[in-house]
Amino acid sequence: MTTTSYTVTGMTCGHCEMSVREEVSELPGVVDVQVSSKTGQLTVTSEPQVEDRAVIDAVNEAGYTAVRA
Amino acid sequence: MTTTSYTVTGMTCGHCEMSVREEVSELPGVVDVQVSSKTGQLTVTSEPQVEDRAVIDAVNEAGYTAVRA
Repeated sequence: MTTTSYTVTGMTCGHCEMSVREEVSELPGVVDVQVSSKTGQLTVTSEPQVEDRAVIDAVNEAGYTAVRA
Repeated sequence: MTTTSYTVTGMTCGHCEMSVREEVSELPGVVDVQVSSKTGQLTVTSEPQVEDRAVIDAVNEAGYTAVRA
């Protein structure tokens, strides 16, 4: 199990968190997603490890940008 | 046809606008809803006129507060 954190820019509220959570949760292998619009932190737990690129693309799909923290 | 404006507090993004729009659009008689998270303005067009109380309750349902502008 691998846990990786990212910093997400642009989330302002709980709906934004939900959008990010939904997209990232769809990635194969993801078992947990923690996301906070307050801190901008996104933490993804997966098995096997998910590629950073896939997580960042999923965040983009939701309408936000992310970088590896 | 009656158009009435309200000031909504707490919306921060497009998802918030969508939540308010969805709830207010469900009210009987409502034919148009304009809502902006930037200005906080909500404009409701209806026939017959919708009670302020109903609009304010719908906004509360969405998780925000409103007053007649």
